[in-house]
Amino acid sequence: MEIARIAFLGTGIMGAPMARNIAAAGFDVAVWNRTGGKAEALADVVRVATGVADAVADADAVITMVADGGAVTDLYFGTGGAAEAARRGALFIDMSSIAPEIARDHAARLGEAGHAHIDAPVSGGEAGAIAASLVIMAGAEEADFARARPLFESMGRPTFVGGHGAGQAAKLVNQAIVGVTIGAVSEGLLLAEKTGCDPVAVRETLMGGFATSRILELHGQRMLDRNWTPGGAVRMQLKDLENAVAAAEAAGLTLPLTEAARTAYRELATRPGGAELDHSAYLVWLEERNGLFR
Amino acid sequence: MEIARIAFLGTGIMGAPMARNIAAAGFDVAVWNRTGGKAEALADVVRVATGVADAVADADAVITMVADGGAVTDLYFGTGGAAEAARRGALFIDMSSIAPEIARDHAARLGEAGHAHIDAPVSGGEAGAIAASLVIMAGAEEADFARARPLFESMGRPTFVGGHGAGQAAKLVNQAIVGVTIGAVSEGLLLAEKTGCDPVAVRETLMGGFATSRILELHGQRMLDRNWTPGGAVRMQLKDLENAVAAAEAAGLTLPLTEAARTAYRELATRPGGAELDHSAYLVWLEERNGLFR
Repeated sequence: MEIARIAFLGTGIMGAPMARNIAAAGFDVAVWNRTGGKAEALADVVRVATGVADAVADADAVITMVADGGAVTDLYFGTGGAAEAARRGALFIDMSSIAPEIARDHAARLGEAGHAHIDAPVSGGEAGAIAASLVIMAGAEEADFARARPLFESMGRPTFVGGHGAGQAAKLVNQAIVGVTIGAVSEGLLLAEKTGCDPVAVRETLMGGFATSRILELHGQRMLDRNWTPGGAVRMQLKDLENAVAAAEAAGLTLPLTEAARTAYRELATRPGGAELDHSAYLVWLEERNGLFR
Repeated sequence: MEIARIAFLGTGIMGAPMARNIAAAGFDVAVWNRTGGKAEALADVVRVATGVADAVADADAVITMVADGGAVTDLYFGTGGAAEAARRGALFIDMSSIAPEIARDHAARLGEAGHAHIDAPVSGGEAGAIAASLVIMAGAEEADFARARPLFESMGRPTFVGGHGAGQAAKLVNQAIVGVTIGAVSEGLLLAEKTGCDPVAVRETLMGGFATSRILELHGQRMLDRNWTPGGAVRMQLKDLENAVAAAEAAGLTLPLTEAARTAYRELATRPGGAELDHSAYLVWLEERNGLFR
């Protein structure tokens, strides 16, 4: 069955531009947001629903983009939730970043209700959402992924990475690599500064070699500018690293670098205001760890 | 004084193509290598000297490209060494990767003998040496760097990063970031595999987002192929990480991720044949650390 009518639940910083891009691609979109006002700002291009049940009533696909697994569970299975209100056979696509085992549980419960599910978290931030260039990591039945591909392509570049939960697992892999790489760049730039190098020149020259990364480019520049305005908040990076370590433990794995980065972000988040800094503020944690203050 | 005549000492895997590129740019090059035969292979484009003293006798610049700091010290200050044999005022350029404090010591001793010194280690490997696209990190007096710039540009892209020793420090920063990033990618791909993801698809999709890096691209592919043929050997990565940790300690710094990667490479190097594997074999260490064997 072709997907034409979309319910989009959660129109925050990420969700609002995603819903706009879906509408621009010709899909028929109804939006709803828990906090009033955010959905209304989209009224020029989409239908603003009066509630979850109204939004999903005639939807072929129900997209959620909210803060965490608990918020998705509420939208799906709370009183007047989408699982009950949607017509049988609707495709539920959760693009929030949540724990893989919760995504698998959602898929199982929706399956019992006759619905399909794709976990499809994203990477690329607000800029990627606006530019429709999000990296989309999908865990699903392959046939459902194929059905949803045109919808995904209105928001970015989708990749099928495995069965239910695999999309969320891939996002945790992404965030583990991001967190550790931010730590690596922090250590490198601090070492440069304390060993007589010009950190600006070092970042510039390293970008031509094996040490180069998107993190060195973007977060390295933030560190040099001491610009801790998010971007990606410490709070969100910590949530993902906690989920990554938990997923690793559930799989019987010890990941020393990921755990070390998780611990650094835990300590950074307990600093006054620390949770709301950009995740490149790992450098601030490292400086404090070394008794340096500015 | 313009630099025209070059002595190039150490024509191994890196040195040989670097000497060729210098000659191709129009410099007058004399080469010497401790192990016979390697220098002779360059006889079509350069003069093969009979010894260190012969190579450096009329050189404006003396380039060294050897395995470690001890080998550079021998070439400079050993019996019949270059410091004594070169004419007064020669520019000594060490492109080997050695400890920053040894480079500073060389610069001081050469200065007493009336010579100038640039520490200018490189990143980019054999492929970069052949393509004349090496990243060159230079620590020097700025005037000496300016004199040497055309010479450096025949081998790659030079950047002035600070005073004596700063080039070597920047190389350690590079290697610390490389080592930790290889660890991050190893942890990510193992987590992907053990949480139901297709690691090939995960690497591919992550390359579009914040987790992307030259390491994910090149070393990530080596990990998927389980291709441990160097490339960059564990032995060399370990040498640089030991020097990075030592330089950090000398600067009063604790760098937890760099130290964790150093420890992993130490253990990997003690494995039979481990020291000669490509540094992407960090994944093998991680698998063994987790009780997984293939």
